[in-house]
Amino acid sequence: MTQPTVEKTSVTLLGLGSMGTALARAWLAAGHPLTVWNRTRARAAALAAEGARAADSAAEAVAASPLIICCLLDDASVEEVLAGTDLTGKDLVNLTTGTPAQARARAAWARERGARYLDGGIMAVPPAIGVPEAGGYVFYSGSRELFERHRETLGVPVGTTYVGADAGFAALHDVALLSAMYGMFAGVAHAFALIRKEDIDPASLAPLLADWLAAMAPSVHRTAEQLRSDDYTTGVASRLAMQVAGVPTFVTTAEQQGVSPELLSPYFALMHRRLAEGGGEEDLTGVIDLLVR
Amino acid sequence: MTQPTVEKTSVTLLGLGSMGTALARAWLAAGHPLTVWNRTRARAAALAAEGARAADSAAEAVAASPLIICCLLDDASVEEVLAGTDLTGKDLVNLTTGTPAQARARAAWARERGARYLDGGIMAVPPAIGVPEAGGYVFYSGSRELFERHRETLGVPVGTTYVGADAGFAALHDVALLSAMYGMFAGVAHAFALIRKEDIDPASLAPLLADWLAAMAPSVHRTAEQLRSDDYTTGVASRLAMQVAGVPTFVTTAEQQGVSPELLSPYFALMHRRLAEGGGEEDLTGVIDLLVR
Repeated sequence: MTQPTVEKTSVTLLGLGSMGTALARAWLAAGHPLTVWNRTRARAAALAAEGARAADSAAEAVAASPLIICCLLDDASVEEVLAGTDLTGKDLVNLTTGTPAQARARAAWARERGARYLDGGIMAVPPAIGVPEAGGYVFYSGSRELFERHRETLGVPVGTTYVGADAGFAALHDVALLSAMYGMFAGVAHAFALIRKEDIDPASLAPLLADWLAAMAPSVHRTAEQLRSDDYTTGVASRLAMQVAGVPTFVTTAEQQGVSPELLSPYFALMHRRLAEGGGEEDLTGVIDLLVR
Repeated sequence: MTQPTVEKTSVTLLGLGSMGTALARAWLAAGHPLTVWNRTRARAAALAAEGARAADSAAEAVAASPLIICCLLDDASVEEVLAGTDLTGKDLVNLTTGTPAQARARAAWARERGARYLDGGIMAVPPAIGVPEAGGYVFYSGSRELFERHRETLGVPVGTTYVGADAGFAALHDVALLSAMYGMFAGVAHAFALIRKEDIDPASLAPLLADWLAAMAPSVHRTAEQLRSDDYTTGVASRLAMQVAGVPTFVTTAEQQGVSPELLSPYFALMHRRLAEGGGEEDLTGVIDLLVR
């Protein structure tokens, strides 16, 4: 049975790494005409066998569709790949990982070339693309007009969350969430290290850890309210002075278990510093101000 | 209406800080005869007005009940407060925060004095005591006999989770979970710091952060399976080599936002080290081995 694909937006996708390939398959599965290009041809050829059109050059790929998606290695690759293409009148969506400053510069660069620009930060791993239950999504920022026009097409592989006209905001949100995640992973690494030489099954600690972290995660709402109000002493669950008093137990336990405290000591040091500066009645929120120059 | 309190176990509680006071109120509310003692009398007097018996000395408090709960400042306080008391035949439950080694030493000390010993690590803040919906609980380890005998009484203020006969395991579980939490808080602090000078409402970032962290928390199950099997290359969502390639984006974004990377750089450094040692195809789990001496 042939789908009436004429109604679906034609998409050009530049970059077929594991993420690009996953995106391509989702658009093909949904019946979008798809043109793909990749520096090494093998991956494009594989997708051609699944119904994509494999372009011979980036310029040909860009010419083929009104909506151009970049999913390349880094910002330098975006510049290089798009250099010889005609972007006039195109809707350019850049899913390449980068910093907020790179996104802002790329947005200006695209506007100079007559294109609308939307930057994206992908909050999902490739296996979660095309799997709505996985709950992944992409932060978008930049041209709201472009976002609204292509919202449905962009939402085919994975959810969408628009976070503002500033092209740098998608990358900033992406980096903020992933930074928080790496902090959590660091804490989890320390926790598993503590039991590594004990007769405790990591799989029995795991559900306790998962539940505890999930239960503590909503504390970010309280932190946000305290930051908004510039009052870190309201709604405090446990005063900084109390928490600092508990720090030696954490450090000594790590020593006793033969575990380096290096992942947690910088945070404990900031807690001490904030206490020394008079923040004993505060929540932990004051630590944030010590990070910002 | 008078409750038939004769059926309820008499409890003695030593230490009436905010946690001890919350525990006391929960046992009183459930109709347990309660004897309390605190170094400074005012808090004991307040609870006496609510139905507790305020003992004049720790020795008198210990003599009053078969079940003795300590909720004191630290391990040294436990030794000092119990020094002049007769623990023969008593069931001693120590909820005082301490290290696994302190718990093990205190268990031996209690046995020498003819008492059964159970150590506890409280996974709740005082406002969550007596509030089952808050989901708090206490890790217990040590005498299983004591735990089973008093399970119901111990479960009155907050949930119970027994984690083994080794008296140090409750403290170890407590410290492991709280360490992971501080890691998460460090990551969250970095995330909020990144947007501190931007026109982004912290309260709009908070739900995104909370959902993302809650979605990532279950990855600890995969970590546990990899630790059990000593195979860190199975079920990998994102290879270490790929993740290390993304690190400059995090570091540069922090620089651009005027945020010190000090809370995350130790973790990134270990990721680099593991990659240099050949772990590129692994998950992040290999970092844990770098922490253990």
